[in-house]
Amino acid sequence: MFKLSGRKIHNAGLPPGTLVRPESAVAMPAKITLINYDRQQYAEKEISRIEDCFQCKDSPAVSWINIDGLNDIGMIEKLGTHFGIHPLMLEDVLNTAQRPKIDEYEDYLFIVLKMLKYDEENESVDSEQVSLITGKNIVISFQERSGDVFNPIRDRIRKGKGRIREGGADYLAYALIDAIVDNYFIIPEKYGEIIENMEDNLIREPTPEIFQSLHNLKREMIFLRKAVWPLREVISTMIRGESKLIHKTTVLYLRDVYDHTIQVMDSVESSRDLLSGMVDMYMSSMSNRMNEVMKVLTVIATIFIPLTFIVGIYGMNFNYMPELGWKWAYFAVWGVMIFLAGSMVIYFKKRKWL
Amino acid sequence: MFKLSGRKIHNAGLPPGTLVRPESAVAMPAKITLINYDRQQYAEKEISRIEDCFQCKDSPAVSWINIDGLNDIGMIEKLGTHFGIHPLMLEDVLNTAQRPKIDEYEDYLFIVLKMLKYDEENESVDSEQVSLITGKNIVISFQERSGDVFNPIRDRIRKGKGRIREGGADYLAYALIDAIVDNYFIIPEKYGEIIENMEDNLIREPTPEIFQSLHNLKREMIFLRKAVWPLREVISTMIRGESKLIHKTTVLYLRDVYDHTIQVMDSVESSRDLLSGMVDMYMSSMSNRMNEVMKVLTVIATIFIPLTFIVGIYGMNFNYMPELGWKWAYFAVWGVMIFLAGSMVIYFKKRKWL
Amino acid sequence: MFKLSGRKIHNAGLPPGTLVRPESAVAMPAKITLINYDRQQYAEKEISRIEDCFQCKDSPAVSWINIDGLNDIGMIEKLGTHFGIHPLMLEDVLNTAQRPKIDEYEDYLFIVLKMLKYDEENESVDSEQVSLITGKNIVISFQERSGDVFNPIRDRIRKGKGRIREGGADYLAYALIDAIVDNYFIIPEKYGEIIENMEDNLIREPTPEIFQSLHNLKREMIFLRKAVWPLREVISTMIRGESKLIHKTTVLYLRDVYDHTIQVMDSVESSRDLLSGMVDMYMSSMSNRMNEVMKVLTVIATIFIPLTFIVGIYGMNFNYMPELGWKWAYFAVWGVMIFLAGSMVIYFKKRKWL
Amino acid sequence: MFKLSGRKIHNAGLPPGTLVRPESAVAMPAKITLINYDRQQYAEKEISRIEDCFQCKDSPAVSWINIDGLNDIGMIEKLGTHFGIHPLMLEDVLNTAQRPKIDEYEDYLFIVLKMLKYDEENESVDSEQVSLITGKNIVISFQERSGDVFNPIRDRIRKGKGRIREGGADYLAYALIDAIVDNYFIIPEKYGEIIENMEDNLIREPTPEIFQSLHNLKREMIFLRKAVWPLREVISTMIRGESKLIHKTTVLYLRDVYDHTIQVMDSVESSRDLLSGMVDMYMSSMSNRMNEVMKVLTVIATIFIPLTFIVGIYGMNFNYMPELGWKWAYFAVWGVMIFLAGSMVIYFKKRKWL
Amino acid sequence: MFKLSGRKIHNAGLPPGTLVRPESAVAMPAKITLINYDRQQYAEKEISRIEDCFQCKDSPAVSWINIDGLNDIGMIEKLGTHFGIHPLMLEDVLNTAQRPKIDEYEDYLFIVLKMLKYDEENESVDSEQVSLITGKNIVISFQERSGDVFNPIRDRIRKGKGRIREGGADYLAYALIDAIVDNYFIIPEKYGEIIENMEDNLIREPTPEIFQSLHNLKREMIFLRKAVWPLREVISTMIRGESKLIHKTTVLYLRDVYDHTIQVMDSVESSRDLLSGMVDMYMSSMSNRMNEVMKVLTVIATIFIPLTFIVGIYGMNFNYMPELGWKWAYFAVWGVMIFLAGSMVIYFKKRKWL
Repeated sequence: MFKLSGRKIHNAGLPPGTLVRPESAVAMPAKITLINYDRQQYAEKEISRIEDCFQCKDSPAVSWINIDGLNDIGMIEKLGTHFGIHPLMLEDVLNTAQRPKIDEYEDYLFIVLKMLKYDEENESVDSEQVSLITGKNIVISFQERSGDVFNPIRDRIRKGKGRIREGGADYLAYALIDAIVDNYFIIPEKYGEIIENMEDNLIREPTPEIFQSLHNLKREMIFLRKAVWPLREVISTMIRGESKLIHKTTVLYLRDVYDHTIQVMDSVESSRDLLSGMVDMYMSSMSNRMNEVMKVLTVIATIFIPLTFIVGIYGMNFNYMPELGWKWAYFAVWGVMIFLAGSMVIYFKKRKWL
Repeated sequence: MFKLSGRKIHNAGLPPGTLVRPESAVAMPAKITLINYDRQQYAEKEISRIEDCFQCKDSPAVSWINIDGLNDIGMIEKLGTHFGIHPLMLEDVLNTAQRPKIDEYEDYLFIVLKMLKYDEENESVDSEQVSLITGKNIVISFQERSGDVFNPIRDRIRKGKGRIREGGADYLAYALIDAIVDNYFIIPEKYGEIIENMEDNLIREPTPEIFQSLHNLKREMIFLRKAVWPLREVISTMIRGESKLIHKTTVLYLRDVYDHTIQVMDSVESSRDLLSGMVDMYMSSMSNRMNEVMKVLTVIATIFIPLTFIVGIYGMNFNYMPELGWKWAYFAVWGVMIFLAGSMVIYFKKRKWL
Repeated sequence: MFKLSGRKIHNAGLPPGTLVRPESAVAMPAKITLINYDRQQYAEKEISRIEDCFQCKDSPAVSWINIDGLNDIGMIEKLGTHFGIHPLMLEDVLNTAQRPKIDEYEDYLFIVLKMLKYDEENESVDSEQVSLITGKNIVISFQERSGDVFNPIRDRIRKGKGRIREGGADYLAYALIDAIVDNYFIIPEKYGEIIENMEDNLIREPTPEIFQSLHNLKREMIFLRKAVWPLREVISTMIRGESKLIHKTTVLYLRDVYDHTIQVMDSVESSRDLLSGMVDMYMSSMSNRMNEVMKVLTVIATIFIPLTFIVGIYGMNFNYMPELGWKWAYFAVWGVMIFLAGSMVIYFKKRKWL
Repeated sequence: MFKLSGRKIHNAGLPPGTLVRPESAVAMPAKITLINYDRQQYAEKEISRIEDCFQCKDSPAVSWINIDGLNDIGMIEKLGTHFGIHPLMLEDVLNTAQRPKIDEYEDYLFIVLKMLKYDEENESVDSEQVSLITGKNIVISFQERSGDVFNPIRDRIRKGKGRIREGGADYLAYALIDAIVDNYFIIPEKYGEIIENMEDNLIREPTPEIFQSLHNLKREMIFLRKAVWPLREVISTMIRGESKLIHKTTVLYLRDVYDHTIQVMDSVESSRDLLSGMVDMYMSSMSNRMNEVMKVLTVIATIFIPLTFIVGIYGMNFNYMPELGWKWAYFAVWGVMIFLAGSMVIYFKKRKWL
Repeated sequence: MFKLSGRKIHNAGLPPGTLVRPESAVAMPAKITLINYDRQQYAEKEISRIEDCFQCKDSPAVSWINIDGLNDIGMIEKLGTHFGIHPLMLEDVLNTAQRPKIDEYEDYLFIVLKMLKYDEENESVDSEQVSLITGKNIVISFQERSGDVFNPIRDRIRKGKGRIREGGADYLAYALIDAIVDNYFIIPEKYGEIIENMEDNLIREPTPEIFQSLHNLKREMIFLRKAVWPLREVISTMIRGESKLIHKTTVLYLRDVYDHTIQVMDSVESSRDLLSGMVDMYMSSMSNRMNEVMKVLTVIATIFIPLTFIVGIYGMNFNYMPELGWKWAYFAVWGVMIFLAGSMVIYFKKRKWL
């Protein structure tokens, strides 16, 4: 589940740009992959020492350095020093509770995104922070854990599918963002199904459990919104094209991702609207049930309380009660009671309480 | 019914511009109609091979290529290549879960719209995506299925009614958008009637079924809004007239469509407002009913419980109960009880519970 | 009552600028009045043939052609042709379901307004569309029916009161708009009274009927808002003064109307806020009533059910029940019961249920 | 109490700039005070004929003409004519239902404000309209009644405290606005106290009366908002400094008033938020009470109804009921009943209903 | 707890720039600390007479004068006079009920912030106003009380950690703001925990006490929002960099604080959303409970009322009641009653009321 606030408290007071290992960091060595390509050639290798990728700084080909795991502060610092990355970027890479944002530095564009994954088991969304540092010929991507949604892109690079080998670093950055946003669509789809199920259940039988999961869903939506909404601004900043790092041809593609982001937001908003409608529905269902319970009670009580009064009368022990001696009195009383009960039943039928 | 999210999941990861047949595509050959006209002459033919319309690229007359059915990817690809249409446009044509949008490319204006049809049977709205690619002398329109709202326009072209034969491709694009928006008016009208009916029913007899359809209607409104709202922006982008493809004279007409869009949105918003008022109404009706049920119970119980107590007293078997021996005691008790019941009835009448 | 959607469906598909008689048009010949004035002189006549006012096109004096009734399409067409009015304007004149708007054409300013009248009988608002076509020396006003709020203006023209005879056509247009907006103030005033009455009634006795009229009032507000809100934009467009048809001196006056529009909107918004507060009030009143009903039931039941139990005990027929034989047992039971009932009454008094 | 709409209906139709005595005007001669000052000297006098202040038009010193009472139309007209004040300003001075606004005329700045006073007795806010006409060396202020919040300013002028004698007419206007806004702070403070009291009462004992005053408070907030909100715009218009009548040095001070206005608005908004939270609280309190009432009823009924049934059994008159003859049967029945009642009490204790 | 309105009433009417001791000021001499540093050297001293820091005005090194306690008006006035600080700034320093704001003066930037501290004991937030006057080489900070969050910064200055000794006064101001904002993160974190606890409790057992603290939390959020929201504007004003006092290099860092502010606001907004969801949850829980109570009552009443009626019948004393004489009648009646009760139990089980 998402957390309300995520900034590490122990960070407060440190000078800006100080690197602090995120609490959630897995105590494992980072996995570094270097992909190097241009129109003609392509190279991919997994490296163990960060220094092994330093030579790509001066290469005219596009380099994509992907780092899984934020545990090794020293390595990240070395990387930053070599490539001239501003310490504030590195601090933000390590602060895994960032909201999506874009910062323009002189030589780099710094982009923070949330990679979302629907966790079928907990019926909730897992979020992993991905930071992209995009330079002239280089994209450095940081992930919290290994496992990502970038395999189709790696494949396209390997096989030279599409425009990717012809594009520059900005196109690669676009492709990575696109892959992340494309995966967002799975989530509203999942929630859409859950909501539809829930609507059916709400009609058939409103239970507190359903209301509980309704509430949880609303909660998820709040946080989903928080993860997707700022993205709009990130991408529109890129489109506005003030950075010289983004080529005009890439802007067309970014516009496409922008549309997708809006579409995801639209779905989230619609879900929110539907969910608040369902709260009303639950409430009305509850009061409907209450109405029915009360009707049963009222019908039973209204029919039998007067009858009980009548039989009570003839249970009195007065010496002089003429009716008691009449021959057919007992049966007459039965007749009266059946008539009374009958007319009440008819009355209730007419009022649709039965 | 509308779907919450519609992007095809299997699209994720493909390079941008890859054409994927939409899931909803009907497995039928596409129907291609070519209409070619200028002030003097007019030609209309249904063609089976896409190549048959290629020559109109260089024709000075306005060409309208209408394609019903998105099944034949190969054909669409050929069309794109011949007319120099950017692959991103073609991808969006095939992605039938787009929200309405406009994209400006160098030689073309790409517009996505939703053609809405009220389905009397399901009391819901059917939506079909229409994409317009507008070039200098050409409009290419893509529809998901055959059957559309463009017949009056075809007629106007055939008979040379109005300005249509004098206008260029931009005027044709306007006319198509206008036809689609004009048909939107039918929907709030329909819903307006349903809402009015529902209001009457809510007053007369609030049932969970009415609440259910109230909820469905709110749902429809959410999605209707989603289909119409972005249109505002689409048209205002066209009006702002930054594209050289749109002539000044057409802008006047676009302003007219813009007003219509606003009017439709206004109706949708008003309906939403009315519907939330009706949720309150339902809730208040429910609690009103409950009040009445409770009043019946309370009146009956309050009248008879004390009476039953009284008759219980004289049913006790104490050896020494002086009243039991009195001659008129029985009738006196009756008198007391009638008096009690009567005064209670008066009391309840005064409190308006009866 | 207002309608949710008003565009005539049979319009859809016609070429833009086609004139269609509005459904609501009264089948009567239109009444045409021509007022012609400048600083020195003044002429007013009712004319029967539209051609009789054609000569005023070239007159340097200000001409005000007022047309009551939209039934005679042919006449309107002739008028349009002679004065060079764009067909889209005429189409909009006839479409009586327009929202207030302003369109700038080359030689004319086209303004659509709603003339509102409070209908005492139905406690609702009547709306009539007024269209103003303002040219250099001419104002053409179209109304749906005869009967309007312009008499004071006619009077001011006749008697030369105020600045009106010195102002141009733009000042006349301002005066007409001002007269319409001034009459808006009557409506929130009326509703304000109704709301205050309703608040008193809600406190004294909440009935479903009051809630029903509360809902109706909310409905009226939705539509009133729809009629007034766009006016703000209409007038601010005029103030911004981009049209050469509006003189600088008139802008001062328009600013005044603008303030009035805002004031009306303010009242409508306040009414809306008050009305939603009143829904809460109604709901709370209802649950209050319920509480009271329940308290009565509970008090009666709680006092008498235990007593009935006690008298039931001594109604048992066991052979050996020692109490039955005791001399004062009957009176002792009475004592116990009175004590019980009394202490309960005290308990309920303390809990403020009585 | 505030009124929903305040424009005088009898105004409608009059030419703009016509002066109409406000309905609320007190039938008393206006009180005119003239204060004349510069750095060196200072003069203050009460005058009875408006002509007595005409000479100050040409004085290089700052003149402050304060007029209490709007009854004397003739006098106001004379004043307007002499100082060249546009009739629209004078009309607005007399229309005491204006919302706060600023209008820039050629030689004057026209500002309308609401002077608010908390009326302890009615626990509501009194509002009086103050209009300021600020010229080059002159400020003319109009008030509805005598009695204002300007005494500290008069004092500062008399004693030459602060910058006031050094500032121009714009500084004086600022000082007057500042005095009015400073007095606004008293109102949210008062309401803050009332709200806190109310919260305590709501927790202890929610009565319809509290809800009623909650509603009244919400109503007051709606109108308070209406009086303060437009002020923001008024002052920010002055700060933007497009008028040559406002000196740069005064802008610093206006920024200060602006901050105060925002602060007051903030308080009003917070109060509104708190009040809607309190509606929820009231509702929940009500349903809580209902729950408790129902629990009492249910506990009593559930304990005694089965017992009454048991004693009913042994009140039957069958000839053959073996238990009736058993020696200790009566006491056994008592035992059973005590056990039953006891276990129910324990059950209810466990469910926390007792 | 926060107060709704905080401006001191006795301020109203005083000339602007008059210094008034804040009510909340502790009657203790102010504690003045002077820190003086540049790249090479560093000096820190506590001074008792304000005159001791006057010489730093002309020092090229950066001076940070921190003043704890606002009791000594005279001292603050002297400080203002010596450093040429506008009286409006000093007035605002003393008005401890300011909302966060930034004002640009000629030589100084005036910033007001709220230092927030979570008070574990009262489960509420303590707020202290911090004012920063930033000049060319000087930062003067005012605090209401001693005790702050600036110790890490003092430490960084002493030890020359990070960039702080190299930056100018603007960097110091940034560092102070950053320290304050960093401490904000603790608060949503705390509230996040409380909210999660509360959610669990709401599900398990909704009590009025929980609702009460829910309401309190909403209240806290309203005021927290009020303290943080304006900060966004403060910092974005600084970033926009129109002031010559803020260097370009500092802007990068300010952008970082800006992001943090947004993140805090996001958390506050999410909490607000969650809290309103929880109000719904509480309400639904309440009505759920009510439903259960009613079901118990209905089940008991519905089973026993008819049975009591039956035993009542055979308690009647008619002379001729054939059943009374039948041998097994008593047991037959038992059989009938057991059957009745049993089928009712089954019926209720089927309706899930048991």
